[in-house]
Amino acid sequence: MNEFDNKPEVGGIAVDRLRTIVERIERLEEERKGLANDIKDIYAEAKSAGFDVPVIRRIIRARKQEPAEVEEQETLFDVYRRALGM
Amino acid sequence: MNEFDNKPEVGGIAVDRLRTIVERIERLEEERKGLANDIKDIYAEAKSAGFDVPVIRRIIRARKQEPAEVEEQETLFDVYRRALGM
Amino acid sequence: MNEFDNKPEVGGIAVDRLRTIVERIERLEEERKGLANDIKDIYAEAKSAGFDVPVIRRIIRARKQEPAEVEEQETLFDVYRRALGM
Amino acid sequence: MNEFDNKPEVGGIAVDRLRTIVERIERLEEERKGLANDIKDIYAEAKSAGFDVPVIRRIIRARKQEPAEVEEQETLFDVYRRALGM
Repeated sequence: MNEFDNKPEVGGIAVDRLRTIVERIERLEEERKGLANDIKDIYAEAKSAGFDVPVIRRIIRARKQEPAEVEEQETLFDVYRRALGM
Repeated sequence: MNEFDNKPEVGGIAVDRLRTIVERIERLEEERKGLANDIKDIYAEAKSAGFDVPVIRRIIRARKQEPAEVEEQETLFDVYRRALGM
Repeated sequence: MNEFDNKPEVGGIAVDRLRTIVERIERLEEERKGLANDIKDIYAEAKSAGFDVPVIRRIIRARKQEPAEVEEQETLFDVYRRALGM
Repeated sequence: MNEFDNKPEVGGIAVDRLRTIVERIERLEEERKGLANDIKDIYAEAKSAGFDVPVIRRIIRARKQEPAEVEEQETLFDVYRRALGM
């Protein structure tokens, strides 16, 4: 038992409110960490199924763009690469 | 309908497997974005309830440490601050 | 003048050493911020010269890889895109 | 020698301009990496001189704030910690 138990407000602080806020954030951060691990697991699964992980990451970014924009960037990438002798 | 429909494997690529992997990652990333927004909302709620958001962030970090370690770092912070005339 | 002036060590803290460390870090962080701004300026210049900035970023990443690896990833990206009907 | 040598503009691309832009960015990124390593070295030096590295990081953040604001956040941190029984 600590000094603030049964004291709804201390020094202008609503103790229960603060505790609720902190615990909700911690719970959501826990879930977020869980999701990040799930995503990592899927990439590991993709890798062991023989897929190229950096290319899958690019696919996922590209699916948020318009197909025509992806196509144009591919073309430009090739032009720039050849221009630089890569 | 695209060229790979009804073709379970093309150029060594298991099309369905790739599609499943990409869609699962996208779903989890969507959830992750949702959680990030939920956390942001709680901080906004904390702010409008009169709490100091950067201090709540520090509280959440500190709750992952041992109390004695938090205490020691507070003491050192004060010593260093005074040493530097802050 | 603060309480630690002319006191080379206070509470086990070598005041001058601490001050030197902190000031060196601050100076380097200042330089780092300057470089980040310089890089941003070059990208802005590239954009106004008509170049595609995200593609230049990819070029810079690709130049750290082996050409054969870049080539293979381009090929895989096309295969995956077609497989997914993008 | 590559296909673009002696060709100042190819497919609307000013080859020399592109090369200059890419090389300037690479040089600045190299310098930035050097600075990041220098900063890491100073933290390592601070650690071996007996300083607490996370506390030095906080000091450096705090020096960008007003002293009164730092003071107020320290006070609130203590109030919140006690409220939560930490």
